[in-house]
Amino acid sequence: MQEYDIIIIGGGPAGLTAAIYSARAKMKTLIIGDMVPGGQTMLTDRIDNYPGIESISGMDLMMNMYKQVETLNVPVVTKKATEIIQEEKGFIIKTKTENFKALSVIIATGATYKFLGAKGEKEFGGRGVSYCGICDAPFFKDKEIAVIGGGDTAVYETVHLLKYASKIHLIHRKDRLRATKIMQDKVIQSPKTDIHWNSVLEEISGEKTVEKIRIKNVKTEVSSEIKVDGVFVFVGIQPLSGIVNDIVTIDKKGYILTDQEMHSSCKGVFACGDVRAKALRQVSTAVGEAAAAAFSAQQYVEKLKGEAYL
Amino acid sequence: MQEYDIIIIGGGPAGLTAAIYSARAKMKTLIIGDMVPGGQTMLTDRIDNYPGIESISGMDLMMNMYKQVETLNVPVVTKKATEIIQEEKGFIIKTKTENFKALSVIIATGATYKFLGAKGEKEFGGRGVSYCGICDAPFFKDKEIAVIGGGDTAVYETVHLLKYASKIHLIHRKDRLRATKIMQDKVIQSPKTDIHWNSVLEEISGEKTVEKIRIKNVKTEVSSEIKVDGVFVFVGIQPLSGIVNDIVTIDKKGYILTDQEMHSSCKGVFACGDVRAKALRQVSTAVGEAAAAAFSAQQYVEKLKGEAYL
Repeated sequence: MQEYDIIIIGGGPAGLTAAIYSARAKMKTLIIGDMVPGGQTMLTDRIDNYPGIESISGMDLMMNMYKQVETLNVPVVTKKATEIIQEEKGFIIKTKTENFKALSVIIATGATYKFLGAKGEKEFGGRGVSYCGICDAPFFKDKEIAVIGGGDTAVYETVHLLKYASKIHLIHRKDRLRATKIMQDKVIQSPKTDIHWNSVLEEISGEKTVEKIRIKNVKTEVSSEIKVDGVFVFVGIQPLSGIVNDIVTIDKKGYILTDQEMHSSCKGVFACGDVRAKALRQVSTAVGEAAAAAFSAQQYVEKLKGEAYL
Repeated sequence: MQEYDIIIIGGGPAGLTAAIYSARAKMKTLIIGDMVPGGQTMLTDRIDNYPGIESISGMDLMMNMYKQVETLNVPVVTKKATEIIQEEKGFIIKTKTENFKALSVIIATGATYKFLGAKGEKEFGGRGVSYCGICDAPFFKDKEIAVIGGGDTAVYETVHLLKYASKIHLIHRKDRLRATKIMQDKVIQSPKTDIHWNSVLEEISGEKTVEKIRIKNVKTEVSSEIKVDGVFVFVGIQPLSGIVNDIVTIDKKGYILTDQEMHSSCKGVFACGDVRAKALRQVSTAVGEAAAAAFSAQQYVEKLKGEAYL
């Protein structure tokens, strides 16, 4: 079985940054991820708030990071890690076909979208129901669509969808949006947006593809129908912490708890990026945490090997 | 007196990133700093480990960040902030000529180099004694110089100085270097480096400029003289936390203690970057912390104004 100092699970901004720092510290490093480069960033149309780069597509930013990883000759296994087993000294990381050994593990598996659980949601998945505006917006050019949610992601994705759709019904169960004001304004001020406050999605229906939705105002208890060709659901994300949630402490929502230097509750396991319990999920924060996680993992490995330089 | 939601003190990577996030959140933002863009990064020759940019000079990276701040029309006061006074609601930030009011303050003042205190060090400052390799290396082309220190900065700067000097005497009081291996190797493997382990600098002397140094081996107690034209001192950094060390909790070395979301012990005061107590001081970590600090400050301000959207 191949042995590494540090195995990084995940190939988004956190995983790639951890690899850059780990490899530069001459740690024997491996990345395992089912998509590398990957992560939510790959699906982000435009990033204007990554410090040092005025404006870049998520994909280009990720390709730049991946190039840095390649320059450092970090090997990548493009498989899904399925299990982590804690050994006396180190860990075994399993994939479907191969196992790997590491003295320490950095979890950078990120997060993914949440399902709403509305009637028809599963049935019309891929037939008008989508969880990724960046991926599917072009299918709804000049069409009327619904967006469910009012948080950061819903608002951000609505701004993007407005470039395509002829009209957007924003269905939000609260009476105000939750996002940065600069983005909120773009949604609220667009003549193409129709916001349905205090409303929830009850049902999605149609023949072969989505044709209409039924929503209910939770204050008036009045239900109404809207004809739409598509439904975008942005009701939050959930951490992809399943692979370690039996060996590290997680919060109620499943995010991995760490200290300031990214140590999880399990010695030798570190976490960074969207999978970590924190307030702000951005490329910038993922990158900062990943550098710190790699440094902590390096110190851990050097101590294990009796090579600590302090 | 001009009033702001968030005043950021410092114009390095942390300060500029905090400004990007704060301005995008439509907070009324001001940067106060005696050099903007500034910070240690401005003096860094080459940065290869900032995720998303393969290789860039410190100055170019800072100019890029500054451009993002300019695009967002964040005003900048290029003066040194001299005092922060806590009021019932908010803070007064003083400069020599003008005062400003803010509901919250982000401290991103960074850190600066430490003096060694050796005989002749002060006397020959600017006449052969330097604390910045990037700034002064070209003056020592094909000359013999000494570098004092063996930590990250000393090693990094030595690698840079090797491009100019004909020979470098590295004087280190310990018997091993403390830096990432990739950088250590560059220093140790260079035929131009002569490492004096377990040695301390006793005196710098010369006529008008530096001509020689006396060092002492602390194990053998033997002193010896080396002819050099320059002495670079890299014995650590110290935080520039003086402006707030009476209102926030600092550690023994003067670094500001924060929680994971960058709240200091004083409500409404946040800290990020090199001035913050942490393990790894890098542009990447400064940027991540600054984004988090700006988000925390924004939440604090919105709560104060009764505008919280949660």
